[in-house]
Amino acid sequence: MTDILEKSQARQRLRSLSEALDSGSLKQVARILNGGLSPSDIAHLLESSPPRQRALLWNLVDKQLEGEVLQYLSDDIRGYFLSQLNVQELADIIEDFESDDLADLLQQLPDTVIQEVLDTMDEQDRQRVEEVLSYPEDTAGGLMNTDTITVRPDISIDVVLRYLRRHRNLPPMTDSLIVVSRRDDFIGMLPITTMLVSNPASTVREVMDTDIEPIPVELQDTKVATLFERYDLISAPVVNDDGKLLGRITIDDVVDVIREEADHSLMSMAGLDEDEDTFAPVWKTTRRRAVWLGINLITAFIAAGVIGLFEETISKVVALAVLMPIVASMGGIAGSQTLTLVIRGMAVGQISGANVGWLLNREFLSGVLNGLFWALVVAAAAALWFNDMLIGAIIAAALVINLVAAALVGTVLPLFLKSRNIDPALAGSVILTTVTDVVGFMAFLGLATIFYG
Amino acid sequence: MTDILEKSQARQRLRSLSEALDSGSLKQVARILNGGLSPSDIAHLLESSPPRQRALLWNLVDKQLEGEVLQYLSDDIRGYFLSQLNVQELADIIEDFESDDLADLLQQLPDTVIQEVLDTMDEQDRQRVEEVLSYPEDTAGGLMNTDTITVRPDISIDVVLRYLRRHRNLPPMTDSLIVVSRRDDFIGMLPITTMLVSNPASTVREVMDTDIEPIPVELQDTKVATLFERYDLISAPVVNDDGKLLGRITIDDVVDVIREEADHSLMSMAGLDEDEDTFAPVWKTTRRRAVWLGINLITAFIAAGVIGLFEETISKVVALAVLMPIVASMGGIAGSQTLTLVIRGMAVGQISGANVGWLLNREFLSGVLNGLFWALVVAAAAALWFNDMLIGAIIAAALVINLVAAALVGTVLPLFLKSRNIDPALAGSVILTTVTDVVGFMAFLGLATIFYG
Repeated sequence: MTDILEKSQARQRLRSLSEALDSGSLKQVARILNGGLSPSDIAHLLESSPPRQRALLWNLVDKQLEGEVLQYLSDDIRGYFLSQLNVQELADIIEDFESDDLADLLQQLPDTVIQEVLDTMDEQDRQRVEEVLSYPEDTAGGLMNTDTITVRPDISIDVVLRYLRRHRNLPPMTDSLIVVSRRDDFIGMLPITTMLVSNPASTVREVMDTDIEPIPVELQDTKVATLFERYDLISAPVVNDDGKLLGRITIDDVVDVIREEADHSLMSMAGLDEDEDTFAPVWKTTRRRAVWLGINLITAFIAAGVIGLFEETISKVVALAVLMPIVASMGGIAGSQTLTLVIRGMAVGQISGANVGWLLNREFLSGVLNGLFWALVVAAAAALWFNDMLIGAIIAAALVINLVAAALVGTVLPLFLKSRNIDPALAGSVILTTVTDVVGFMAFLGLATIFYG
Repeated sequence: MTDILEKSQARQRLRSLSEALDSGSLKQVARILNGGLSPSDIAHLLESSPPRQRALLWNLVDKQLEGEVLQYLSDDIRGYFLSQLNVQELADIIEDFESDDLADLLQQLPDTVIQEVLDTMDEQDRQRVEEVLSYPEDTAGGLMNTDTITVRPDISIDVVLRYLRRHRNLPPMTDSLIVVSRRDDFIGMLPITTMLVSNPASTVREVMDTDIEPIPVELQDTKVATLFERYDLISAPVVNDDGKLLGRITIDDVVDVIREEADHSLMSMAGLDEDEDTFAPVWKTTRRRAVWLGINLITAFIAAGVIGLFEETISKVVALAVLMPIVASMGGIAGSQTLTLVIRGMAVGQISGANVGWLLNREFLSGVLNGLFWALVVAAAAALWFNDMLIGAIIAAALVINLVAAALVGTVLPLFLKSRNIDPALAGSVILTTVTDVVGFMAFLGLATIFYG
């Protein structure tokens, strides 16, 4: 834990590790690695290492630590290490996995390998895993853990305490026991803290908490996260349609969902994957980036095509070529502000049919006001620069048009894309830029053609 | 809790609320609001409402719920509601606040008001609040809560259990008791689950966990979050330099830090505040956006200035005006991918002096490869379009130059800005765009001037 408490310590350890690696004294590296670093620290170290160093480090990790380290790695990197293991190694590693982590891991393997791994397991474990695998990764079912401690409502707290004492330890993040009927129907929660302050003679039914609504197994993971955030939960029960208890979700897995969801918007808006490996090799990086550049090149050619329509006007008034990027870029900036605000608002569930009208109206008015204000500034600057009042008037009009278009498209586009099940963070910025470029160039050069033509 | 489990239910409630508001039947609104909605639900509803509706709803919230609702509101909106209260109302509301929430709230008030509020408190409460107020908001001290349950190491578990039973309830998120010496020095943690499976006759010292390192009170809040994420903590002790226990941080407050930190990068890159009110009134929105547009206008004028240097060349070869935005925009896209990746990598602590060299090299190579590939595509398209091999060659060269510049600046800029204590997410995209615009136009039009001039 010390390594990030003291930045200098972390750096020192990283440096001594990389010095040890450089000097080739692998024994020393292994000692630093396996002596005292927690699995999550090792995972962080691997994620912070370029490919060659990463492979070296991974080979030095103790066999019995590998499984835990894998759980903390991001999908991209974990997938790579997994692909290097044979079935027996896989089976050894996953023996002690909790069911949700196991499902996460198995979902990254090819189907044939999953079957082989399942074959090495005993009947009970196999059933447990197959059940968890049957739920999509991004639902409550994919997040839940099937290891739960349940109690019946009619026993006394004293009996519960004695029952617990028979365990050597309780599952991590056990803040509550789950109260179920004989048929495993969810009834309520028994917080451990409640148990500790209750009279041992009272029954579970008397002190349990029945306000808590269980989470439906098919609920989307981001909604699960909202529930945990809004109600400050540490763990929550998961049930099927009939109210039968299936498992339990804990805050540590929810924190990962929150982090990934928030990263998703940021990374998608730049055409990156939220699971992107910061230290991916050149070739992989180049291929992924090439796709995004290609998509944006289409946008750029569309904009160029619009400008091409006005070649004649530009050849008469070259000042237009000088000023036209201002109109396009101001539109792009204004649009991306609105787009980002709406995407964030949608992600936290603030925007709905009931208030989108107000929002559109606000963005429109704000676009008009900012359009008018900056149009005056730009018009004055342009008129002075080229000693031409007309070009000032034209750029002013084009700016107002483009800022208003940016505001309207920035508001409506993400809502439209989401209704079509297209990721607004990924597609939104490309489409928006196309619109603000086209509208900007069209308005500015079009008006110029009318007045100078 | 049902309202977000079932989207349609949430919408229905929102609609029936807004219908009730429209029809002016405020009694009905108040009934929906105060009957069954949790304080966090009400806060969410307020955050999802346009200003007029928000003010109406706030007036209808039960007085005794107001304090709790305020705790769940984002700073922007809370600040507004707070400014509407007088000192007595404030004092009433904050009576039951936990110390960390209270500090958050007080930090939003003017100093004179804080003093007046403190004056209404009794000595003990005032001292508690003054202590918490003395730590900056974005440190462990600002996150911590001073209400902790501590035990001595030499007593038996049985005594601890009996001591706990004397409480009517335990503080929320109590997963561990904190073991301290007679002088309040931190010694270790006693997880409640451990206590439940231990022999009641054993002493606290025998079963406590001493592996846990306490959090220094001045540690930055984002580092606290990293610790919680990496070690799956629910609560952690906070100590001063001498190791004396000061308080306790719980996961619910850490989740807020994680959410805010992740939102910060997303929102800042569009020049927005992470606390931005989605439904801020027109005037406020317009003013805030105007600043960002103004900053970006400087960038746009710099780019225009560069183009202006080449007016003569453009007037001879108008095709240059048509193609030049392609060079600038491809550079901007490539640069923002690198920038976003590095900003995210820095936020999660993956990038350090030890690996930045490798990263710069990877980005450079990837920039060269993608530059060459897309240069060929664009060159072919441009040459065909304008039936001019030379313009194809020129745009190819300019593209390679700009993509390489984008990769280098995208990598180095955020690191440089951070070393100067400038927020890379906020300033990075503006500066990067300036660079890719200037380099793009300069390279393309400059080469064209040489070859066509």
